Amino acid sequence: MNARNAFYAQSGGVTAVINASACGVIETARAHPDRIGKVFAGRNGIIGALTEDLIDTSLESAGDIAALRYTPSGAFGSCRYKLKSLEQNRAQYERLIEVFKAHDIGYFFYNGGGDSADTCLKVSQLSETTGYPLQAIHVPKTVDNDLPITDCCPGFGSVAKYVATSMKEAGFDVASMSRTSTKVFVLEVMGRHAGWITAACGLAAEKESDPPHILLFPEVPFDEDKFIARVKECVAKYDYCCVGVSEGLLNKEGKLMAETGARDAFGHAQLGGIGPMIAGIVNDKLKLKYHWAVADYLQRAARHIASKTDVDQAYALGKAAVEMALAGKNSVMPAIVRKSDSPYVWEIGSAALKDVANVEKKMPADFITPDGFGITDACRAYLAPLIAGEDYPPFRNGLPDYVRLKNIAVARRLPGEFKL
Amino acid sequence: MNARNAFYAQSGGVTAVINASACGVIETARAHPDRIGKVFAGRNGIIGALTEDLIDTSLESAGDIAALRYTPSGAFGSCRYKLKSLEQNRAQYERLIEVFKAHDIGYFFYNGGGDSADTCLKVSQLSETTGYPLQAIHVPKTVDNDLPITDCCPGFGSVAKYVATSMKEAGFDVASMSRTSTKVFVLEVMGRHAGWITAACGLAAEKESDPPHILLFPEVPFDEDKFIARVKECVAKYDYCCVGVSEGLLNKEGKLMAETGARDAFGHAQLGGIGPMIAGIVNDKLKLKYHWAVADYLQRAARHIASKTDVDQAYALGKAAVEMALAGKNSVMPAIVRKSDSPYVWEIGSAALKDVANVEKKMPADFITPDGFGITDACRAYLAPLIAGEDYPPFRNGLPDYVRLKNIAVARRLPGEFKL
Repeated sequence: MNARNAFYAQSGGVTAVINASACGVIETARAHPDRIGKVFAGRNGIIGALTEDLIDTSLESAGDIAALRYTPSGAFGSCRYKLKSLEQNRAQYERLIEVFKAHDIGYFFYNGGGDSADTCLKVSQLSETTGYPLQAIHVPKTVDNDLPITDCCPGFGSVAKYVATSMKEAGFDVASMSRTSTKVFVLEVMGRHAGWITAACGLAAEKESDPPHILLFPEVPFDEDKFIARVKECVAKYDYCCVGVSEGLLNKEGKLMAETGARDAFGHAQLGGIGPMIAGIVNDKLKLKYHWAVADYLQRAARHIASKTDVDQAYALGKAAVEMALAGKNSVMPAIVRKSDSPYVWEIGSAALKDVANVEKKMPADFITPDGFGITDACRAYLAPLIAGEDYPPFRNGLPDYVRLKNIAVARRLPGEFKL
Repeated sequence: MNARNAFYAQSGGVTAVINASACGVIETARAHPDRIGKVFAGRNGIIGALTEDLIDTSLESAGDIAALRYTPSGAFGSCRYKLKSLEQNRAQYERLIEVFKAHDIGYFFYNGGGDSADTCLKVSQLSETTGYPLQAIHVPKTVDNDLPITDCCPGFGSVAKYVATSMKEAGFDVASMSRTSTKVFVLEVMGRHAGWITAACGLAAEKESDPPHILLFPEVPFDEDKFIARVKECVAKYDYCCVGVSEGLLNKEGKLMAETGARDAFGHAQLGGIGPMIAGIVNDKLKLKYHWAVADYLQRAARHIASKTDVDQAYALGKAAVEMALAGKNSVMPAIVRKSDSPYVWEIGSAALKDVANVEKKMPADFITPDGFGITDACRAYLAPLIAGEDYPPFRNGLPDYVRLKNIAVARRLPGEFKL
């Protein structure tokens, strides 16, 4: 069997560990030169494939590829660009096959979330219908932790560790100042439709009096009166109150409270600003001194405080994707299978892409306390191992020493430009 | 000479390393039982002294006191409470002396910023005029880095490391997504009147194309047209633009752009929201996709990414304060003296409190580039050593294992309550 080349692309919002998956893919591919030729990465994700803008990763040193393990964000560029359905835009898919054919690409590794799993599925189906031999493997990634089947998603554990650490640290700050200063602190976190990141804030509290005292989940419509009553109660009891709120908080009518009106290429609403909004409500109703923070990209880029579990899993999933390809698999995704909570034991399993694409995993109802403001012990048992372990990047001159790859383009083989 | 007790209090906004100074004070005092009896800490700062609510730190284990070195925020509680002038409220000062007398306190260690240095000075003067033997030593602390004489202020180096790291990480994120997503990212940082923290964001950039591309200092009145032109230029050149903005940014009329109307006990305006305001301006004028983050307390509480230089200096200044007291000094503050930038060499010097109180050190004009949007090499040479070195706290269950002290109160010896 001749060695064929591989294509790898990063899709959607990047994370602190998506490059660890890239590292797993490339290092594993390099270990099998008899089966896999070069790994070409799409510059800016799938757009790189469509425009034949491929990066030759074989020109990167082993050291630089190894450094991807501790470098956040998408080293080859990612994109928010959703391929239309086969019926709506067959030309896009045919173009992909054309580019793959021109560069003898036999393996398609797509590193992304639910939307990307759908693209990966369609590519695998097209390979079947066109008879072009291609194995499409999806590598899971999303800070939102909302992919089905896999026990968790790479990227989430590190955001979880960041928000829990930040809430713990800010909580110490507020507690020490509350006598004469801030009484209410609000931290806004990501998580568009599922409250996983909001829930992770709750890990900062070991007992009831510890911050955060209130969590506002996207799963629980905001009830202002109930919220204000709880803030009042916390301030009376602890002299302060720390709140974690999801960017995706809904009002009672099911409308996003912080919608700005803008939408991205996937049609998702651009969110932001629920933190100050909630703080403003507290100020209006209770006249308490407040502060608020919006972590935004800081949370998903914070490789300096990544979870070792998360980094290890991200790498292992990249490695497993290549191993699945070598084993002849197609239209699958390696997944994390949890064998036990404590001690935490996990292994790599496999999911069919048709069961993954466009399915959103919400938080189980029994992960949220009956009052809607906290996490249950079951939730805690699920989350705790995901933030375990530290995996610090090297530092130079006081700052993390992340790698910037050379990202040299492969010579084009196709005539003309493809219009996106 | 009989051993006399010491009083220690934390004042104003807390930092990631103010407890390291407390650790230096208490451990050094404990090493001199012949001269210093117990260290009593004010619960919630000077309020604890006024209300005779003293914490007996001798009841804390050596291990817990050592853990203060890596625990952020104010372990004994801090406060925003400014003593009035001697003329306006002599009773407050007399009450302090009364409480000190009742508990045989001969040493007053006050850990704070410029306002607190003023209080410390007044206490030292009162000691002279009343004939009560008391040595008042100020231990510098402020993330704003705006105390005079000392080369830098404990707390600042760690915030600087946090904002530079966060900007670097977020910059990687935005760069990898800019093809189809966010073009402009704005990070709002602290620094009420001086742009030191804003300047520290600039350390993330090693070359011109690196983020941050624009810094908005409180020293440079905001010029919207000039700013928008620069954003446009950066997006054209790099495909994205990262901005660091000070909470204290002023408009051309010298008015705080993000003033909320509220004021704290020191009469300072409560700020917040300039980040989204700047992002909104970008959106209005350029219709570019934007994101913004407001680090707020996260930046000054982030002990997990503290600067080792900062921690070492905070401890050393606490230790030096006690050594100065033992040497018979009064009305002084130990200060950092820089001997050289590279290699970075520093030692402890001494400043008279009368030269420190209520003096605010601004950024030198030659630290800001002529266009007003960046930092100069001189600024970089000053800042770089302050973020050098990592000093991770221990972790337990995936989170920093910070200490909570027992904070047991000393039995009251004075009758009645003191009205604040």
